Amino acid sequence: MAITAKLLPTLVAGSMLVTSAVIADDGLGDYRNRFEALPHLPPIPADNSLTAEKVELGNMLFFEPRISSSGVISCATCHNPALGWADRIPRAVGHDGQIGERNTPTVLNSGFLESQFWDGREPDLEGQALGPIQAPVEMAMELDMAIKRLVGFELYQEKFSAAYPDQEDPINNDNLAHALASFQRTLNTPNSPFDRYLHGDLNAISEQAKEGMVAFVDNGCIACHRGPALTDSQFHAIQVPGSTDLGRYIVTEEESDKYRFRTPTLRNVAVTYPYMNNGATETLEEAVAIMGQEMLGREFDDDTINSITAFLDTLTGEMPKFEVPALP
Amino acid sequence: MAITAKLLPTLVAGSMLVTSAVIADDGLGDYRNRFEALPHLPPIPADNSLTAEKVELGNMLFFEPRISSSGVISCATCHNPALGWADRIPRAVGHDGQIGERNTPTVLNSGFLESQFWDGREPDLEGQALGPIQAPVEMAMELDMAIKRLVGFELYQEKFSAAYPDQEDPINNDNLAHALASFQRTLNTPNSPFDRYLHGDLNAISEQAKEGMVAFVDNGCIACHRGPALTDSQFHAIQVPGSTDLGRYIVTEEESDKYRFRTPTLRNVAVTYPYMNNGATETLEEAVAIMGQEMLGREFDDDTINSITAFLDTLTGEMPKFEVPALP
Repeated sequence: MAITAKLLPTLVAGSMLVTSAVIADDGLGDYRNRFEALPHLPPIPADNSLTAEKVELGNMLFFEPRISSSGVISCATCHNPALGWADRIPRAVGHDGQIGERNTPTVLNSGFLESQFWDGREPDLEGQALGPIQAPVEMAMELDMAIKRLVGFELYQEKFSAAYPDQEDPINNDNLAHALASFQRTLNTPNSPFDRYLHGDLNAISEQAKEGMVAFVDNGCIACHRGPALTDSQFHAIQVPGSTDLGRYIVTEEESDKYRFRTPTLRNVAVTYPYMNNGATETLEEAVAIMGQEMLGREFDDDTINSITAFLDTLTGEMPKFEVPALP
Repeated sequence: MAITAKLLPTLVAGSMLVTSAVIADDGLGDYRNRFEALPHLPPIPADNSLTAEKVELGNMLFFEPRISSSGVISCATCHNPALGWADRIPRAVGHDGQIGERNTPTVLNSGFLESQFWDGREPDLEGQALGPIQAPVEMAMELDMAIKRLVGFELYQEKFSAAYPDQEDPINNDNLAHALASFQRTLNTPNSPFDRYLHGDLNAISEQAKEGMVAFVDNGCIACHRGPALTDSQFHAIQVPGSTDLGRYIVTEEESDKYRFRTPTLRNVAVTYPYMNNGATETLEEAVAIMGQEMLGREFDDDTINSITAFLDTLTGEMPKFEVPALP
């Protein structure tokens, strides 16, 4: 079954992208045109069509702690909907209180990214989904055991069968990954003040935020933070204070990839603190200053930092509707 | 401000208790009259009036992981709304993966209990609320630090001030406990099939469940599992397989209190497995058999076990409405 009426409010109009139909003008059209409003849906891969049944199942699995070895850690533990679908601590805390190497990225709008994880080691959400379940410092679970636990619940047998109606044994790794990816593709935050501004509501953001937008373009931030999710999905070298993380090098073992990380999305950046791959940067102002220094070789003055921060504040969109499921 | 329209659907009609206005009859009136339907609200203590502002604040605090020392464990971690507001593992997993001594009780309908915790060491939800925050095996947090973290968020300054408008420094231990208790008093599950049956809908439960109700009364289960929450809030000695827990003795140091535990509520018992103080009993059927043996000295036959289980299944009520809050 295709997406039902229930899901439509969050999912429709994915292709409506109106950046040019501005009626009045504030003289900043050339700047506005460098940006793209966030669609309601990211691209859907041909081999994982988005259906209401997969989204519902993925929603359950996202909140399901029994697919961790302790039985108490779910995807939603670190990707906490109360905390911008991230965790607001520097580095993720996982199985037995172990602290990971990196800051938890938000899953919001993650379907718009061209690769997943800080080091881009997976190309898509399907590839990403099974990683944290198995990572010893995260959910620390063997996939076979996760599948076995799911098979033990009649409700999951029903829901997997509904999502994958043509399959005899639908509870398997692939379908687990596909359902989680499908749910995550619905976790988007359109209609931020900045999107409304791009759509022609010239009063949707403050004058200071507009100055920030101009500074963001003029200083070249937009070179990497571009497109609907404000990321180029490319890898750039940055060594932030306190980090010895080799980044993309761990994946490719290419010397030139040392300390490279995928450009993070700036969507909802104001509610997904702290910042940088090691989460060592607490405030947006600090993060803007560090990026100026490290990536652009510039010392931003306070006015510039404050206006860019005001601009970034306009990127917080409407939080997705979801349900805390009744698990079996 | 008193409870607003927004909360009314979950909170009204708390005092409507109609157990006798049965129109038709199935000949079981004498049994039905031994039970009480669950009100929509438990008693509200005189020194903690229930207001919409306290409930909203308590809802935020219930999902707030920053009041744990790791920053990732909230009340909702073990009292997980996806899992019957409990955790569905034998014994609670807390700070750094430590495993506690006891099974997590559901917070559903906990306002109806006359004492809190398995050993009844706190008389009310206000007393209970600060326990798990400080317990080294749970959230492992010093209260001073929890308060300090909350003070650091403007949004909490606003919400505490709104909930406690006459106080100069409203972010303190007492108000933290009161707000959490207020939220928990809204987490009730009225209108279960059994409540509808008590209210006169004689087809709301199956014939097997009615047989179970009769067996529940005739075998004396109701001696301890009575009142709206199906608990007498008293302490009874039981040593379940594998448990060395001294229970109420730890509180009173009275020899006669060894191995005594407060009778747990049977409301929503079908969705709050596993059972017993150490969570060692996985199924309701086993639990019924053990209670027959240990508390009543009876070996229930399979029919009796199945009918009592069918009766217990009718005690799952409407799950409370709540919001996953947007935390600061």
